[in-house]
Amino acid sequence: MSLIIIGTVAFDAIETPFGKTDKIVGGAATYASLAASYFYNKTKIVAVVGDDFKKEDIALLENHGVDTEGLQIKEGEKSFFWSGKYHNDMNSRDTLVTELNVLEHFDPIIPESYQDCEYLMLGNLTPQIQRTVIERLNKRPKLIVLDTMNFWMDIMMDDLLETIKLVDVLTINDSEARQLSGEYSLVKAANKILTMGPKYLIIKKGEHGALLFHEDKIFSAPALPLADVFDPTGAGDTFAGGFIGYLAQVGTVNFNNMKNALIYGSALASFCVEKFGTERLLELDKTTIAARLQQFVSLSSFEITQD
Amino acid sequence: MSLIIIGTVAFDAIETPFGKTDKIVGGAATYASLAASYFYNKTKIVAVVGDDFKKEDIALLENHGVDTEGLQIKEGEKSFFWSGKYHNDMNSRDTLVTELNVLEHFDPIIPESYQDCEYLMLGNLTPQIQRTVIERLNKRPKLIVLDTMNFWMDIMMDDLLETIKLVDVLTINDSEARQLSGEYSLVKAANKILTMGPKYLIIKKGEHGALLFHEDKIFSAPALPLADVFDPTGAGDTFAGGFIGYLAQVGTVNFNNMKNALIYGSALASFCVEKFGTERLLELDKTTIAARLQQFVSLSSFEITQD
Repeated sequence: MSLIIIGTVAFDAIETPFGKTDKIVGGAATYASLAASYFYNKTKIVAVVGDDFKKEDIALLENHGVDTEGLQIKEGEKSFFWSGKYHNDMNSRDTLVTELNVLEHFDPIIPESYQDCEYLMLGNLTPQIQRTVIERLNKRPKLIVLDTMNFWMDIMMDDLLETIKLVDVLTINDSEARQLSGEYSLVKAANKILTMGPKYLIIKKGEHGALLFHEDKIFSAPALPLADVFDPTGAGDTFAGGFIGYLAQVGTVNFNNMKNALIYGSALASFCVEKFGTERLLELDKTTIAARLQQFVSLSSFEITQD
Repeated sequence: MSLIIIGTVAFDAIETPFGKTDKIVGGAATYASLAASYFYNKTKIVAVVGDDFKKEDIALLENHGVDTEGLQIKEGEKSFFWSGKYHNDMNSRDTLVTELNVLEHFDPIIPESYQDCEYLMLGNLTPQIQRTVIERLNKRPKLIVLDTMNFWMDIMMDDLLETIKLVDVLTINDSEARQLSGEYSLVKAANKILTMGPKYLIIKKGEHGALLFHEDKIFSAPALPLADVFDPTGAGDTFAGGFIGYLAQVGTVNFNNMKNALIYGSALASFCVEKFGTERLLELDKTTIAARLQQFVSLSSFEITQD
């Protein structure tokens, strides 16, 4: 039994009002697998890099117990590279450079040892690649989580809808939920999207937290208000990784565990933004995470004292 | 012992994508006192109207046990009138007409029978009028809540700061918190504002809920996601009225009761937007409110199952 995370492993160069980095290790699968590793010790990744990706870069993941057998290294090619600059409010950013490189012809190969997959996180990639991974697993995982974005809605909606049909949980942000459903109200948007395949929908609202929809039930997870957001890169992927990592650990998929999983994901995401790139994610421990989880309890607990 | 609410009692004409109204009874003190009346039966208002305000309009309030002795009726003058049109997203609106009328020379007279005031809600008015009310009370109330808006920050910040110094709780929205503090991060904004006088700060975020700050503690109240928002007019005032009405009922001011009060206020506000104007607020009962409060419990409860 294992958790497989497919997504980008990449180099990022990031500029925020607090400073800038040279090329550092990033990518959705990097953030998500590091986050998941704190909750589940059989986390495996499927991804591709070029030969510019160093042994010590891979060690970042392996030191956290992440299985990298499914990480293809393409000789003579370069890793996916993204560079971006955040505005002062940290809520918007300009993409300065996107070099697909190895990602252009990415064929997600599933090692034989990954066929025990029970939990599958399909990070943001083309809907075809995401679908290919599902098809290449001999047995359908117990839970498939799909992350996607407006870009695929803009240019290949039909393909995306085909892939969405196959998954259990969809994670998108509020404007993407509106785009996908054609509904402005998030409740109406969710009701429509829950007829497209997924049984659970997570709508990410950044600093405003996240909403989970399932049947006629709704859960609202708060975001931890932070004095400083140092670098928001990877926060959404960290959230998704913490979410599925917690569920894989618990081993039972139901609405209650899903609610808790949103809090675990949110807690990990709140660490992610405290330093540049993966830096903060690399140095966590169980005690630090437990204290942060208690902050989420204080943040949202109240009592109905009358009726 | 009583709860006094000062604010506008007015006529509104509202247009939303769902329809439009003729002149209907509105105003901050109307919404807030109706909301408070469900939790506390000694709610009194201080406000002014013209002789166009009918007996049956006043009866709307009195039927809910709201004491209107402090409602001045100016013969030969007209009531404050506001007309607005909401855009399709319901998050923005155009003001079509604002006629101050009686409000232009409003002198808030406190009836002798109001001198037992323990809880005071200063609805959005000029900072001078708000301050006058505090000065005219023989004894400082146990709790003073102040609502204000960006308009007063734009044109009379010094006056506003003088009034803010005198209160216990300030309620503003997120952009107003940023304007008042000069800080973008809401945590930093709150830390600054909590040095300006108020011991508690409530930041209202509309469909994203509300945050309560006190010392180094934060509470995040979710908003109930709704399929249809019919008319947002008065939701913020309803929230404030439910908030202080609950606190007046409980009778003890502390952070825990304040947290609960935010949920009670949010629950009342979630009703307010379901119909035009005060319509939904007028027809509530304890059972309906108790069921809505339970929805807030389901919406935000989770469990930390490990550490």
